[in-house]
Amino acid sequence: MTAAPRQIKLGMFLRPAGHHLAGWRHPESQADAGVNFPHFIELARIAERGLFDMLFSADSATATAVFDPDGLRRMSYVAWIEPFTLLAALAAVTTRVGLVCTASTTYEEPFSVARKFASLDHVSNGRGGWNLVTTGNHTAAMNFSRGEHPPKEARYKRAREFAEVVVGLWDSWDDDAFLRDRDSGIFFDPEKMHELAHVGEHFQVRGPLNVARSPQGRPVLVQAGASEEGRELAAETAEVVFTATPTIEEARAFYADVKGRMARFGRDRDALKIMPGFFVTVGRNAAEAFEKRERLQMLIHPEVGLALLEQRTGLDLRGHDVDGPLPEIPPDKVISSRATLMSDMAKRERLSIRQLYTQIAGGRGHFDIHGSPTDIADAMQEWFETGAADGFNIMPPVLPGGLTDFVDLVVPELQRRGLYRTLYEGTTLRDHLGLARPKSRYAQ
Amino acid sequence: MTAAPRQIKLGMFLRPAGHHLAGWRHPESQADAGVNFPHFIELARIAERGLFDMLFSADSATATAVFDPDGLRRMSYVAWIEPFTLLAALAAVTTRVGLVCTASTTYEEPFSVARKFASLDHVSNGRGGWNLVTTGNHTAAMNFSRGEHPPKEARYKRAREFAEVVVGLWDSWDDDAFLRDRDSGIFFDPEKMHELAHVGEHFQVRGPLNVARSPQGRPVLVQAGASEEGRELAAETAEVVFTATPTIEEARAFYADVKGRMARFGRDRDALKIMPGFFVTVGRNAAEAFEKRERLQMLIHPEVGLALLEQRTGLDLRGHDVDGPLPEIPPDKVISSRATLMSDMAKRERLSIRQLYTQIAGGRGHFDIHGSPTDIADAMQEWFETGAADGFNIMPPVLPGGLTDFVDLVVPELQRRGLYRTLYEGTTLRDHLGLARPKSRYAQ
Repeated sequence: MTAAPRQIKLGMFLRPAGHHLAGWRHPESQADAGVNFPHFIELARIAERGLFDMLFSADSATATAVFDPDGLRRMSYVAWIEPFTLLAALAAVTTRVGLVCTASTTYEEPFSVARKFASLDHVSNGRGGWNLVTTGNHTAAMNFSRGEHPPKEARYKRAREFAEVVVGLWDSWDDDAFLRDRDSGIFFDPEKMHELAHVGEHFQVRGPLNVARSPQGRPVLVQAGASEEGRELAAETAEVVFTATPTIEEARAFYADVKGRMARFGRDRDALKIMPGFFVTVGRNAAEAFEKRERLQMLIHPEVGLALLEQRTGLDLRGHDVDGPLPEIPPDKVISSRATLMSDMAKRERLSIRQLYTQIAGGRGHFDIHGSPTDIADAMQEWFETGAADGFNIMPPVLPGGLTDFVDLVVPELQRRGLYRTLYEGTTLRDHLGLARPKSRYAQ
Repeated sequence: MTAAPRQIKLGMFLRPAGHHLAGWRHPESQADAGVNFPHFIELARIAERGLFDMLFSADSATATAVFDPDGLRRMSYVAWIEPFTLLAALAAVTTRVGLVCTASTTYEEPFSVARKFASLDHVSNGRGGWNLVTTGNHTAAMNFSRGEHPPKEARYKRAREFAEVVVGLWDSWDDDAFLRDRDSGIFFDPEKMHELAHVGEHFQVRGPLNVARSPQGRPVLVQAGASEEGRELAAETAEVVFTATPTIEEARAFYADVKGRMARFGRDRDALKIMPGFFVTVGRNAAEAFEKRERLQMLIHPEVGLALLEQRTGLDLRGHDVDGPLPEIPPDKVISSRATLMSDMAKRERLSIRQLYTQIAGGRGHFDIHGSPTDIADAMQEWFETGAADGFNIMPPVLPGGLTDFVDLVVPELQRRGLYRTLYEGTTLRDHLGLARPKSRYAQ
């Protein structure tokens, strides 16, 4: 038997009407997606038809980080179905695709997070994953009775301990703890129940978790932070990293850096899959793709561009000339590594505010590509084969139309090249990703 | 047009393998229910076939409140799928039955609770409900990094403010706030977005919620507390009350008391449905029902009886003679109104520890009845027509068997008497319960 060839992994990055800012205005999107559960069932089924490894949802604990509601009224991403509820519901109407959801270590409790993701893994029969975030958006504090959003260093210290507690709780019950022996009347073996008894700087959690060990042993641990702290935590604990790298060079540097850190934590490089976001506009040919993209760019209103930049950079841009340069982000106001990335790009390429928002309108700091199925497959193959990616988090500009395009046009091309599965390898998300089922910390 | 006759409302009280302590040992139960999502799909579909108003799930933030793991090993209710995740998943595979889940005002955040229940209402197209609890089990504190579980009075003060914030957040967006006008590019009307800006003793929450106003306007507000504090809060805010009343006399007193308090809050008596738990063992005739019940009672192991009593009373019963009396609950150790109720019953009827646990093994303080379909329907009719109940929260001893019995045998009898629907009245939980869709606080 020969080893299976390494193949591309695919995530479908959910976003109500699509990833392009003006996506909701496009006729191939579902403008009322934020309140339309059947729309998400359709997306999940298209992704499953396309043999995607997983659906992925980001999250935000506020309707918006932007200052001015009038500048907001053109934004569609202000209110939609809470992603965990959404993915739990989608578990019941899908059978193979993984379900990865975001939860914040700053604004949630480790016992609750351990419990809900173990439960997602149960209802999906082994398809759950937790995307750990520390919440970059400081306005979240205002919805959670907190005077101040904690600074990044404090958030990451808490996050590390939070993850330790969650992973520990997932091992509360051995896989064979539940005997359910009707004759003797013994339901479980107390020797196989474990109290975590965690006492740390941020958390004191006794356990055991009131959910049995889940089908995957532990849900897949996902991360998205790209800062120094984020990279360290990912190298130590993550099994998937979603990242925003606007060029292949940056992607390679990120890939080499994070994989290079893993040995220090005694981890094999294959135990972590790095999956950059790919903002993809697909046409049957290059000209059609270009036209599709241009049509979307024309739909961006300047108010929307400004609101996007404010949200992404943390800057208040009211009163600034949109044809002038982006102001500097004061060092104490840096809200995320992506904000710095955008600010650097603007400086490097001497972009006006208007040029910057048009450029990032789609990808939001992710690699932005449009082209024929061959063009897209070429790029994916290059990234995949030259140390930039193990897979991609696909971000269609409009939904469902852009996802259908990707599945009908790009997936067959990747399959022809032997770069992508033609059947699901198994039933769990770990099966798809080629990740081992973790042993319990209490296993012999 | 004549007014529709008042009819019985029914909740299906979920519990993995059934409500009887030894239910999981019975051949008509699903012993591995705690990890078996398809089992819950089956329950939901049986309940929907029986035209139930809603599925209801209690919750616990710990695997158990009991002290001794060895005394626990015969208990099946220690670990199962987290109920919110479960009900969200069931939303996708049902079309009419309501979905009511518990969330704690002591261990959760109002922004998160508002968000997840509004989302449940969206994915179910108007079938969501929130059962507000303050968490009676003091061991929950140990899983949430809290030194101490707050005393009841403090919990209820927090609960009142918590509910106010949640209900306020549900009105963040007017029903017609989202214009989604593709031509003008305006997605929503900022005049119809409302920041709650709540500043209170326990919470400071800005809002708006990042979920649109839900199909029911607000999910249905449910409560279960029976203490003085619980009754006040229910009379002021609840739309459904689940209650444990072991006799019709106690049920009538509770009903009159809670409904009597409503006028003080300017509320109509019909705006709140009181639904006592009914622990029901149904046979085709009385003899068969008696045998079914006896068979279950024989399956209770003394270790289980003790563990049950410890969990329900908060007492540590190790070393006590099971044929002796229940010790007094020290006044500062009363964990709930139900603990007092049980202790009073033991004293009044001079029950030994063994007799007490056998007696409450099924109903856990709820009305416990076994009999033919006519016997059960007679009792329900009497409760319903003499001011003891607006409906019932049905607790089958074994699942799925006991629910199938109820739907196939009792439901047709209630329908013959005109006491129960023969078709769903509408599509939302409010439609079923005959509750009006609430206007937004910002509506003219």
